[in-house]
Amino acid sequence: MKDFPEPLSRLIDELKRLPGIGQKSAQRIAFHLERGSREDVERLANALIEAKDKVRLCSVCNNLADSEACPFCSDPTRDASVVCVVETPYNAVSIEKTREFHGLYHVLHGSLSPLLGIGPEQLKLKSLIERLKDGKVRELIVATNPNVEGEATAVYLSKLIRPLGVKVTRSAMGIPVDSELEFAKEITMTESIEGRREI
Amino acid sequence: MKDFPEPLSRLIDELKRLPGIGQKSAQRIAFHLERGSREDVERLANALIEAKDKVRLCSVCNNLADSEACPFCSDPTRDASVVCVVETPYNAVSIEKTREFHGLYHVLHGSLSPLLGIGPEQLKLKSLIERLKDGKVRELIVATNPNVEGEATAVYLSKLIRPLGVKVTRSAMGIPVDSELEFAKEITMTESIEGRREI
Repeated sequence: MKDFPEPLSRLIDELKRLPGIGQKSAQRIAFHLERGSREDVERLANALIEAKDKVRLCSVCNNLADSEACPFCSDPTRDASVVCVVETPYNAVSIEKTREFHGLYHVLHGSLSPLLGIGPEQLKLKSLIERLKDGKVRELIVATNPNVEGEATAVYLSKLIRPLGVKVTRSAMGIPVDSELEFAKEITMTESIEGRREI
Repeated sequence: MKDFPEPLSRLIDELKRLPGIGQKSAQRIAFHLERGSREDVERLANALIEAKDKVRLCSVCNNLADSEACPFCSDPTRDASVVCVVETPYNAVSIEKTREFHGLYHVLHGSLSPLLGIGPEQLKLKSLIERLKDGKVRELIVATNPNVEGEATAVYLSKLIRPLGVKVTRSAMGIPVDSELEFAKEITMTESIEGRREI
């Protein structure tokens, strides 16, 4: 016998496709929605469809936007001479939360991964080169992930863009603040030593 | 500046209303959906609405059902002489997973909680009494949660139903299988000793 009525099973199956949602969480959410009001469910369903239909990529930086240009690119107070390259819109949010970066972003929507068949043509590189052509950008900060793919992407970008006369920098890797040296991996420790700064 | 385009913020806010979903999970899910196809999002949105519209309560036991009677109540091979009382449809699923119980269920949709203002009239008790009238039910297993509210509900049910000539039993409390005595709370240990069985 099936555990749940068919429409409920289908909802649980759909919920399980979401990242971080397993069988138990999916059941919990489905039962929660069954108990709640139809308006709540409708609002969620509409929010899903609207987010999909109204959100598109910024024509300049490929970040998520609900108009032609994203909030960053359409903000004249941001420093257009520094562009931070990130893998995903999500990563831009992390950097934005520091409130320390006031430049613009460029979202690659991925990183180079020969294993997954992701080459330069799968990334949003053309529009990046295009942005650099007018010479207004002085520095490109490559803040891709500190893993093999992110590193490969950073090296590739450096080789591609340095010849255009733009300074290319890499966000620092090292021991996370408030953690303990004892628990750092060797490779992180190496990066930390190599990236040392005079104090 | 807002972190996300408005429709995306709204979706994240809606997702955060779900149990077990915090800001980070909501963002992760929202970004996942933005990356995916419109069909996937549509399927999820439709599953939500359908589950809400097509799932109702079984007219016999108040379990979730997509027709007049739930799969349990409409299955002639189940033992109709034993009814297991649970607080939520979810709890019935847990019991069903043991494959040890072959009777029917009755879902109260809550437990007695004076603090939350939940009295007997807020629970699905009338339909339970109705079910017991024809004398076919011999035993009522009260499998409400092993907490104050579940216990209060069990005691209340026992007093209410024993006079009808139906045996009322309570699912056992004790040390969970595969755990260690060392970590059991005193109250659980007490229940375990009191509920001891001859071997």
